[in-house]
Amino acid sequence: MTTRAEVSRLSLNQRTTALWSLPEAVQGCIDAGLGAIGIWREQLVEVGLDEACRLVAGSGLRVSSLCRGGFFTTADPAEAQGAEASNREAIDEASALNAATLVLVAGGLPQGDRDLKAARERASAAIERLVPYAQEAEVTLGIEPMNPIYAADRGVISTLAQALDIAERFDPADVGVVVDTFHVWWEPGIEDQLQRAGDRIVSYQICDWITPLPADTLLARGMMGDGHVDFAAFTRSVALAGYQGDIEVEIFNADLWAAPPAKVLDQMVERYLDLVQPHLAG
Amino acid sequence: MTTRAEVSRLSLNQRTTALWSLPEAVQGCIDAGLGAIGIWREQLVEVGLDEACRLVAGSGLRVSSLCRGGFFTTADPAEAQGAEASNREAIDEASALNAATLVLVAGGLPQGDRDLKAARERASAAIERLVPYAQEAEVTLGIEPMNPIYAADRGVISTLAQALDIAERFDPADVGVVVDTFHVWWEPGIEDQLQRAGDRIVSYQICDWITPLPADTLLARGMMGDGHVDFAAFTRSVALAGYQGDIEVEIFNADLWAAPPAKVLDQMVERYLDLVQPHLAG
Repeated sequence: MTTRAEVSRLSLNQRTTALWSLPEAVQGCIDAGLGAIGIWREQLVEVGLDEACRLVAGSGLRVSSLCRGGFFTTADPAEAQGAEASNREAIDEASALNAATLVLVAGGLPQGDRDLKAARERASAAIERLVPYAQEAEVTLGIEPMNPIYAADRGVISTLAQALDIAERFDPADVGVVVDTFHVWWEPGIEDQLQRAGDRIVSYQICDWITPLPADTLLARGMMGDGHVDFAAFTRSVALAGYQGDIEVEIFNADLWAAPPAKVLDQMVERYLDLVQPHLAG
Repeated sequence: MTTRAEVSRLSLNQRTTALWSLPEAVQGCIDAGLGAIGIWREQLVEVGLDEACRLVAGSGLRVSSLCRGGFFTTADPAEAQGAEASNREAIDEASALNAATLVLVAGGLPQGDRDLKAARERASAAIERLVPYAQEAEVTLGIEPMNPIYAADRGVISTLAQALDIAERFDPADVGVVVDTFHVWWEPGIEDQLQRAGDRIVSYQICDWITPLPADTLLARGMMGDGHVDFAAFTRSVALAGYQGDIEVEIFNADLWAAPPAKVLDQMVERYLDLVQPHLAG
């Protein structure tokens, strides 16, 4: 039997149960005894921020993350201004929801643009411009390095080391890093980088790297235990770095999305208890 | 008009024209005025080593690489012994062909094994065991870091930095690195790593990173210019590092394999002259 204490740090990222609306996902978390939920802006819009805040406050759930801000890499000044406005709005939402972090995805190369270095510099500069606003709102920005499989079209920040190089220019209360096993499980020296990150780890997201990779690489993530990630070792490293926050399950996968969300949540709890929870003591 | 001098450093890796036998590929290179060929062991077997040596010597082509040795990550002692024997044979072949390098692909995680760190250590130890034999045969081993997309199932050495950490334990005449744009184009600080590599770069392989990624990720590579790699900047960095060797086009792609090989070779020459050759002066 699962006890509430055993899953108190487990969080359901809404993307794992994409069929559920926010009210349904909140109820699912309550029913399973989870401690937190990771909320997506796209689904927040459906219920509105005020209603979402009421819903979450009434549920007793923590908001382990708001997904997501970012997409900073455009070279067009007007588009960059639009992105900044959208990110400020996301910061306001994260503040209202009292989210542990606003997850930032850097964005990919603009259409036809091959200057990766310049795109990375634009992402870094855009984060710098956001910091005062986030600070004012008491929101911690979380830079999420993404698997190099997405370097061209989604996220030009590719390693935890690179994310930390940016984050360390700021106060840890203002800018941290999001550690997702799918994105960084392969990174040489990842244990050292997790130690280096220490209290900058603002979110620990879990899902597996599966092979063969599904045809749509955006949906290439697997349930913990179905792939190649060593969750025991990785989780111990995260714990050793001092991370005390929630463990958020975020899985983009067409097969899981086709399954009944409650069953997915059951399986996720089972795998978490089997593969992750025992290693949280470090 | 293409002059022989302009393509004198261009090499056709056999995998780009998979339909061609070795004699056909050699003739294709001669017809196009190329200076070198990259040979695959699988296709070498079809003609035999002696005949291949005669063929290559008669053609005047350099052998820019023999592909490939490696696959070092098994945890089974008998299998590891088999891999070592196969690698010694590959060294003998590389020596007989006077290949610039024997390309080493580390290998992936063994079935059901999630200990990436241990697999990496086994790869590194296996390379160390091979060095004396390679030294004796005057063959330079070339460690090829592979895109993290292959970290689980093909190559656990994921960055040029990581490959150099291993290579630098040995004399540059014995162990170098293979730089393939597809594998490392995204690596943060790649320019610095190429400078660090210097005369350890024993092979410069080119092909493009295309999106969306084809369903079979093993065949996900594109013709130069079809994707996101900045060949001008990358080639200048390779040249600046002091690389004087051949530039080998290695493209695994189902569409290209279905096309007439001579047409693929024509297109590859055209793209090389357009995107790569002008930047070889650094």
